[in-house]
This record gives sequence, C-alpha cells and structure tokens, in this order.
Amino acid sequence: MSKAALPGFRDFYPAEFAERALIFRAWREVARRYAFVEYDGPPLEPLELYTKKSGDEIVGQLYNFTDKGGREISLRPEMTPSLARMVGARANALRKPVRWFSIPQLFRYERQQRGRLREHFQLNVDIIGEADVTADAELLAAAIDIMAELGLGPADVRARVSDRRLLHAILLSLGAAEEQVNAYYGVIDKFERQPRELSHEKMTSLGMSDANVARLFTHLGPTSVQSLRESFPDAAVLEQLDGIARYLGYLDRLGVGEWVVLDLTIVRGLAYYTGIVFELFDAKGELRAICGGGRYDNLLGALGGQDLPALGFGMGDVVLGELLRERGLMTPPSHTAEFWVAAENAERLPEVMEAARALRDAGGSVEYALRSQQLQKQKKAAQSAGAGYFVTLGEGPGSIASIQSLTAASAPSGIESATTIDALCQLLASRTSSESD
Amino acid sequence: MSKAALPGFRDFYPAEFAERALIFRAWREVARRYAFVEYDGPPLEPLELYTKKSGDEIVGQLYNFTDKGGREISLRPEMTPSLARMVGARANALRKPVRWFSIPQLFRYERQQRGRLREHFQLNVDIIGEADVTADAELLAAAIDIMAELGLGPADVRARVSDRRLLHAILLSLGAAEEQVNAYYGVIDKFERQPRELSHEKMTSLGMSDANVARLFTHLGPTSVQSLRESFPDAAVLEQLDGIARYLGYLDRLGVGEWVVLDLTIVRGLAYYTGIVFELFDAKGELRAICGGGRYDNLLGALGGQDLPALGFGMGDVVLGELLRERGLMTPPSHTAEFWVAAENAERLPEVMEAARALRDAGGSVEYALRSQQLQKQKKAAQSAGAGYFVTLGEGPGSIASIQSLTAASAPSGIESATTIDALCQLLASRTSSESD
Repeated sequence: MSKAALPGFRDFYPAEFAERALIFRAWREVARRYAFVEYDGPPLEPLELYTKKSGDEIVGQLYNFTDKGGREISLRPEMTPSLARMVGARANALRKPVRWFSIPQLFRYERQQRGRLREHFQLNVDIIGEADVTADAELLAAAIDIMAELGLGPADVRARVSDRRLLHAILLSLGAAEEQVNAYYGVIDKFERQPRELSHEKMTSLGMSDANVARLFTHLGPTSVQSLRESFPDAAVLEQLDGIARYLGYLDRLGVGEWVVLDLTIVRGLAYYTGIVFELFDAKGELRAICGGGRYDNLLGALGGQDLPALGFGMGDVVLGELLRERGLMTPPSHTAEFWVAAENAERLPEVMEAARALRDAGGSVEYALRSQQLQKQKKAAQSAGAGYFVTLGEGPGSIASIQSLTAASAPSGIESATTIDALCQLLASRTSSESD
Repeated sequence: MSKAALPGFRDFYPAEFAERALIFRAWREVARRYAFVEYDGPPLEPLELYTKKSGDEIVGQLYNFTDKGGREISLRPEMTPSLARMVGARANALRKPVRWFSIPQLFRYERQQRGRLREHFQLNVDIIGEADVTADAELLAAAIDIMAELGLGPADVRARVSDRRLLHAILLSLGAAEEQVNAYYGVIDKFERQPRELSHEKMTSLGMSDANVARLFTHLGPTSVQSLRESFPDAAVLEQLDGIARYLGYLDRLGVGEWVVLDLTIVRGLAYYTGIVFELFDAKGELRAICGGGRYDNLLGALGGQDLPALGFGMGDVVLGELLRERGLMTPPSHTAEFWVAAENAERLPEVMEAARALRDAGGSVEYALRSQQLQKQKKAAQSAGAGYFVTLGEGPGSIASIQSLTAASAPSGIESATTIDALCQLLASRTSSESD
C-alpha cells in the first residue's frame, strides 16, 4: 500500500503542523483583537450552493460526487457560499454588523502542476451589514495586522487597493460604454501579466479612443487620489475619490497606512465584487497574492438570502507560509516536553510518575521513560525528545537531585535551583500561562 | 436554495463554535502537559487505506467516490489508518515512543436516525513503540485528565478497563477452545445489552460448561484483581493479572486511580485490539461511550508498515459535549469585544479608530461603531454586542471621559479608573495573556 498522501494533499507531521499552528495562531489572535468571532460550516455542502454562485463550469474543479442518499454534494472549494447560507438562515436574528471569521480547509481538483495543491487552509474574515468604507478600512487593517503579528513589515508586504465603483466612473468618463465595463475590467485585471500593446489593442477594440487608453494607462499601477483628481475631474469620479480618500484616511488612523498603495489594476478577476477590492502581495512581487478580498454587496441577495452589504477576504496558508519561510519567520515554538523526569533506580518509576503528575497539575509539560533504563540512557532519550530540562529525583520522597537544562534557551529564573518537586510546582503554577503555552 | 446544512452535518455558529473550542482547548492543553505533539493527515485518503483494515463491508458506511483522475478515494471515517500510513512512511526516522495526537473531523454515511450525525471531531491520542503497560497507564491517564480539565470528576465519569490477554487466559482456563475465543468475545461484548439467559445459552453452545459459564458470569461487571486471582488461580491468568495489577498501580501514581474500574465486559467489539482496552462512560450510564481505546500491537504491521507495538484512543466531541451540557460545564468564555470605544461627536471617528488601534496593539479586543451614531445608540450597540467595557473618549487627545462596565463580571482592578488611552494600554499590556485569551 502506498505510504504517500493523495497527490495535492499534505501530511502534517508535527514539524509541519507546528508551522500551520503558528499561522493559525496569528490569524486567531488578530481576529480576537478586532472582535471577529469564529464560526465554521460543514466541509461538504450541496453542489448547487457552488453552481448557483459560480455557474456550472465550476464543477470541473470540484471534488463533487453523489452520496449514498442520491444527493449531489461537493467538498467546499470556498467558504463564502456557506457563510451566505448560514447568515441567510438567521439574517434577522444576527446583530449587525456580523463580524465573523473562519479557518476552513478548502478543496479544488486542480490539474496537477508541479507542487500544486488540491487543498489549503484559508482564513476568511467578513463583515456583513455595513455599507460604509469604515468597514472596508476595518477589514483591510485586520488583514495587514496579521502580517505584522507574523513579524512582516511594510517592506515585506504591500496592500494594493482599488475600487470597482471608481474604476467604473473613470471608464465611463473615458467614453467606455456601460455594457462594456466588465470587458474593460477583464483587460485591466490582466494588465500586469500581458504586453502593454496587447492591452491597448484590446481596449481600443472595445471602443475607447487611443488617446483615452493612453490617459488611462498612465494611471494603471501605483497612483494617488490627488493625481486621479487632477486627471479625471469628472463629478462621478470625484465622488468616488472622496470615498477612497476617506478610506485611506481611516487606514492611516488604524495604523496601517504605510502598507497601502492605491492601484487601479487590482480588479480581483470578474468575480462578484462591487466596491473596494484589495490584494496583499510580497513586496518583491515574487509570489502569488497572499490575500485578496473586497466588497460584495449583491452576493447575499443573489444567493437567495437577505440582501445585505458585505465584504470579506480570504488568506491562504500556502503562499503566506512560503513568504514566512523565505524571511526566516517560520519559527514555531517547541512543542516538546519542558521536563523529563528520571530516577537512578528503575524501581522508582512510581515516584517518577507521581512527580510527573504533580508537575503536569502545575501546568508543566512532562515526559519520562516508559521503560526501565539507566540514567544516562534516560538523559539521551530526553535530549533526543528535545525536552527542556532533565529532572533527576533525589533520595527523599519528592526531592530533586538535579535539574539540568538540555536546550540552549536560557532558563526562567529559579527553575534550576528547585530542590523539591513541590518547589518546582510552585514556580510553574506562578508563572503566566503565556510562558507555558 | 436550502438554508440548511446537509442532513447529519453541523453548522457551527459562533455560540456552537465556542463550545467546540472549549472542548478542543481542553484536549490540546492536556495533550501538551503529557507531551503529546499534534499532527494531521488529509481528510481524503485512498479508499484501500480503509478497506485494507476493515474489509470491503466498510464501504457501505463511507463517503467514498471516484475523483476526476479516476482514483477511488474516501473521506476519512477514522484516523488510525492515516496514522499508520504516516508513521509507516517514516518509521525509522521517528524517535520512539511516538507520542502524537490529532483532532480530525471524521465522516461516516450512517443511515439517518433521529439526530444521528454523519461527521464529528475526534481526539486521537496514540503511543507507538512501547509494549509495556507503563504506556497503557500514561494513555488512560491522559484521557481521564481531559475529563478533569473540563470540570468532570470520578462521580461523573468512570473508566472501565479490561485486557484481551487476561480475558483470553480466563476463557481458556474455563475450557474455551482457542479458535472460539473471538466468538466468546462477541458474546461478552454484548453481555450488558442482552438478556443474561441469552448470553449463557450462546456460551454453552460455544462449548463451555454450564458451571464454567456461571463462574465467568459472576466476574462480568466491576471486579478486582484480587477476586480474579482467587477465582482463576491458573498460571496464565495470574501472569496477566500481574500486568493488570502493575497497570492499576501506575494509574494510582498518575493520580487517576479513583476513576478506574476493572470490568471484563469491556471488549471493544471485534476490532483489532490485542491487550488492555478501555472505555470512558458517564457514571449514570445514560450516554454512549465518551472515549474508547486500547492496545493494537499488530495493526501497523498488518497495514504494511513497520511492526511496532501501539496503543491509542479516540474521544469524540458529541457525547462529551452532551455530558458537559448536562452537567452545566459547557460554559465557554465570551468571545465578544472587551472594549467598545465611542465618542460623543461623529466627527471624532478617526480618534476612535486611533484609540482602537492603540488598545488592540496592547492586546485588547476592541470594537466601535462603523457608522455615525448618537452616543446612546453606540452604547446600545455595545451592549447588544456583549462588549465588556464602554469607553467614551474625553475632550483632549487620547483622554478618556468614562469607562463603564457593561457586563456583570467584576472588573480587573484599575481598568475603570484609567483616564487616558495610554494608561489603559499600559494596564492591558501588563496583564498576563492568559486573561486576554
């Protein structure tokens, strides 16, 4: 039998699990500070939940099947449909704005390219029930604060923001026909990934004049509210720019302004977004987007729920993990035992167990040799287990002969000088739980 | 579109998620104290991973399907096969004993009975590479300590233990034929759920004398090593009883002896167990088992991996949750904002945001009104959000006019008397993170 996981699926051995936990911990910590509360939905949902939002063509990418009761079902490829379903079911009872987050594992059957995964974990953070840009600022600030929580700075990660409504107003002011706006979005979405001439050609073929295409192009890429105000003094554009200016001002107040760049090429594909959209990228531009999101005011209504303004982002664990490893920031705390308890004489195992019990009750993480071994072998086992301290019991009941630090990390004061298990327990019980986590 | 989850699947709204998190937290905390490290495998595995262990009849209960690459795959119905696969792939590199735990979501297509779930979360704790009963004691002590961590005591939960090897020796001493032992196990496994006469009849039809069946029956149910020693003074039985006595002695030393009852009716079905087996039950006997496990020394070898002694248990979230709710112990901490920041004047929103930012940086959980509202409406919103404190900004920059406690919980000293955001931040930063979690 194969000893490998299915192609595209990951085994999380303890070392990999600890890395995943480091990311999850930052996600949950920042969500807590922003008062988002965690929810979860089922990993299996009715297939129509996804086809209703994304059309039947999505099915080719799904892990879908017919269950033994004849239901067409699918592993979840994204969380938003489940969120819309759950909020829709209780829309009237939930206080607004809904501030929820979740960390689902998501599944897509991608044609295997080298290293391409078919599952990942994705933080989803959403605010439902607030139409103002205050909510957009709050949402992006949370995404950026996660970067800071993980040790990344504005030199590592850039947040590129745009607004569908602003781009819409600019396109109309440049003579675009309303019914062609989505087609223009498609060209702009690919602007950075295809030759400029091709983008130009596509735009003129959609009906925009050469001159106007050239005017637009000077503003694709990092830009500013002031520069856009001067270039597009159209009333509809200026109104949208007022909103963007307020948004950027709020981001400053929320302490994340220096991470943010206004960039009209951020369109987020042809998806369901209706307002401000954003993506987080590594500043070097070497990786795929770390995070993407924005406002999707019409989606909940379209999925058959209550029509509520909404916005959210998704942040996967894979690209983020690559960036953290590259920057030397993927250094999860050790999850091995803090204490290895040992005794010279194998017949004293019951006393070792009592000491382990006492230290565990005091919050310590404790291991001991499950089979009788010489003291030196026990110490070797403790070292190979990565234990923090090697505690050798003394002669009297509950006495300690020695406590040796096995790791390079410096000892919290007092630990090594404890001469009884009781004293060591008191030291453990008095420390903060943050140190014991 | 249906707003309900698939039958047998749960939506975890924030209140339900908080209950789930309470259980997960206890699981992880006790695992940490016992120095078990967390791992995870894929929720999808090759179908043969399960049929190889459990036979083709298992397929009727699986969420299995053919993926778009033609692979026969299944959602995981249990974790042990993935564990065996992962340990098998790195058997030589892993230090022994392996002390691992995981909290997978597991899936079974059960014919829907009222309230019967098709998914649950199950803590799996395993020790691989140690044949002695020291490991069995360590494992059961961890399971029982989870009960204690959740606020349950020996009056709420009983651990019933037995040993397949002991039962085997007793059955042989009573004249059972070796090849009939599994059939006897089947009768004993059902002993408490069927009329005693029927069990008696089945045993005699397997070849045991009436007198010996009667002798056995007097020992089915809670018993003791001493009583079994006196009743079955057979050398093979006595040898097994020595092991059990040592096991029970270790459990005493590990501080969990008073939860444990020796009970030969614990057989754990006809599964792959080879030695000590155990189940945790609510003491009233009203619920299904909370936890079950034991030693499965032959399984890893049988699944094609390295032949290593192994033992483990599974503890689901559903029965445990029922018991905690019944005992009034399902009381997760609040996950709403600690602080709601407000200002009299809507134009001061940027200052509110700056205060929120500062408090969040200090580790506080903070919310504020995303839309302009009268102060009284903001306070109502804070109350309906379940926020801890309502912080009203004062006149000067960074000053606080008042801090009102909105919840019945008593305030940590000093919080309510802070007069500036800076002072409040210092109070927050100095508290232990255990209070902020």
